[in-house]
Amino acid sequence: MIANANAQIKLAARPSGLPKRTDWEFVRGEARDPAEGEVLVKILYLSLDPAMRGWMNEGRSYIPPVRLGDVMRAGGAGVVVASRDANFVPGDHVTGTLDVQEYATVKGKGLTKIDPAVAPLPVYLNVLGMPGMTAYFGLFDVGRPKSGDTVVVSGAAGAVGMTVGQLAKIHGCRVIGIAGGPEKCAYLTRELGFDGTIDYKSQPLGAALRDLCPNGIDVYFDNVGGDTLDACLARLASHARVVICGAISQYNNTTPVKGPSNYLSLLVNRASMQGMVVFDYADRYADAVRAMSGYIVEKKLRSKEDVVRGLDTFPETLLRLFSGENFGKLVLQVADA
Amino acid sequence: MIANANAQIKLAARPSGLPKRTDWEFVRGEARDPAEGEVLVKILYLSLDPAMRGWMNEGRSYIPPVRLGDVMRAGGAGVVVASRDANFVPGDHVTGTLDVQEYATVKGKGLTKIDPAVAPLPVYLNVLGMPGMTAYFGLFDVGRPKSGDTVVVSGAAGAVGMTVGQLAKIHGCRVIGIAGGPEKCAYLTRELGFDGTIDYKSQPLGAALRDLCPNGIDVYFDNVGGDTLDACLARLASHARVVICGAISQYNNTTPVKGPSNYLSLLVNRASMQGMVVFDYADRYADAVRAMSGYIVEKKLRSKEDVVRGLDTFPETLLRLFSGENFGKLVLQVADA
Repeated sequence: MIANANAQIKLAARPSGLPKRTDWEFVRGEARDPAEGEVLVKILYLSLDPAMRGWMNEGRSYIPPVRLGDVMRAGGAGVVVASRDANFVPGDHVTGTLDVQEYATVKGKGLTKIDPAVAPLPVYLNVLGMPGMTAYFGLFDVGRPKSGDTVVVSGAAGAVGMTVGQLAKIHGCRVIGIAGGPEKCAYLTRELGFDGTIDYKSQPLGAALRDLCPNGIDVYFDNVGGDTLDACLARLASHARVVICGAISQYNNTTPVKGPSNYLSLLVNRASMQGMVVFDYADRYADAVRAMSGYIVEKKLRSKEDVVRGLDTFPETLLRLFSGENFGKLVLQVADA
Repeated sequence: MIANANAQIKLAARPSGLPKRTDWEFVRGEARDPAEGEVLVKILYLSLDPAMRGWMNEGRSYIPPVRLGDVMRAGGAGVVVASRDANFVPGDHVTGTLDVQEYATVKGKGLTKIDPAVAPLPVYLNVLGMPGMTAYFGLFDVGRPKSGDTVVVSGAAGAVGMTVGQLAKIHGCRVIGIAGGPEKCAYLTRELGFDGTIDYKSQPLGAALRDLCPNGIDVYFDNVGGDTLDACLARLASHARVVICGAISQYNNTTPVKGPSNYLSLLVNRASMQGMVVFDYADRYADAVRAMSGYIVEKKLRSKEDVVRGLDTFPETLLRLFSGENFGKLVLQVADA
């Protein structure tokens, strides 16, 4: 392959607070020919996720941090252009950890073949990808909702939140979504069938939760942390389950994380709060994809993506996650098919 | 019975911070004759517990607060002096919610008969009473330790903590206790067989936990909250269980409770944090009493009480719980047998 054919974005510095453009280095590297067992993928879409902020920090976490000077880690979807893995031929569509670049040369065993006839590629980065898996296993395995339970989800207009709410509705729960702004809230109730929403930008959370959850919260799925977590803890029902999926309000802190002052509500209500990392469920992804593909076909489940074009926009596009601007799954389109 | 025969201590004001003597009212009331189904008990010992501080606050909790002007709620052990319940005769020894007074007239069905030949009465307020039940069900049902697990317990020289540590040792775990001062720490390792201790008054917690729990903490039994909870969260092993039993460091706060800043360790480590209230296990107390009586007889389990004499000392004696002065179960002796 041609040298300099591959535009790449490397992590140049560990950000303090929100990542700045100078924390990134734009380079042109090689689109390397695959070695035995490898596949060369032309990247079409990249998944932009809140978790990426954590990967940019030093220190022990559930996966190693991205090293300074390495191409930024990201999930993506693309098309095979060359293959030395017998399971893939040029023209195949695939997802995997492809990183923030135009071409990825990766081991075939890290890739999953996908069918663009079943769903558009961005859906494989959303409901049929990591956010969907996170919602499915976080809700059902950790949240363990019963039919009739009141389920509250924060970041409800984000990729994970939208799917959590829709799955909980399919499961027979009452669903309240917390999101920012009237447009997002209206979409959740009108288009996705949520029973209620709270616009955290204009409504005091505590009072709204009291109104909408008169019998307390049975399952709280937390994507946000901070004051939102605290307000929900204060409204737990007896034996409630709190799923700690993320804490987007805290990822860019330059001061210590705000711990939930109301955590003793766990004691009073014999409730539990449990963290989850989607990778632990890898051996069951196929089950979840099967179930959710079925819901999509039956039109019970929607996959909404917020697609932004251009690899060069990556630094600014990523920030949309933290400003609350994205609406649905944030996807970066890197190339046309 | 004679009027004015019953010295009682009533809650006169809702304390701000540590309860002061003026938050109590000392009165002499009636030792009322039992009505049908009731029993008149002469109180010998009262159990002083951290949870009592919570009962003095207004607001929703796992049981209603003590009302202003009511005799302060307390568990106790005593001897029956008159009975109109066929299950009790004068001379029987009993435990139950007897409150802070010399005589209690209560329904017989709220009492449990105890045998002072099996164990001294204070033991029925400790290992064979609520603290023992709390330790047993909190550790085994919520903490779910496996043999070989590293179990850390805070408030380790208190009533619940001592029993948690001993039960975990019996179960084959490595046990680290967090307590205040060299005397308590030495007792835990030399007398109770703990594998290690941390003197929080003289040792930095984080470094000590790193040394003593090189593979992380599998079960953390929290009686303390605050910085201790935070330090333990930072050392969790994968799939760890945190038992929220109490938060004695926070009960007298006049500022908001300190939430655990390191709660995202639950996410990274796929760990859970669960609250427990002992009353939920009432239908299984008999099993726990049977198991623990057996351990006592086999000399595998010790019950250490810190007995202070005199109902009048109640306001000051209670404070020993919050200053860390008590060593073992704090018991107030109200009368001789």
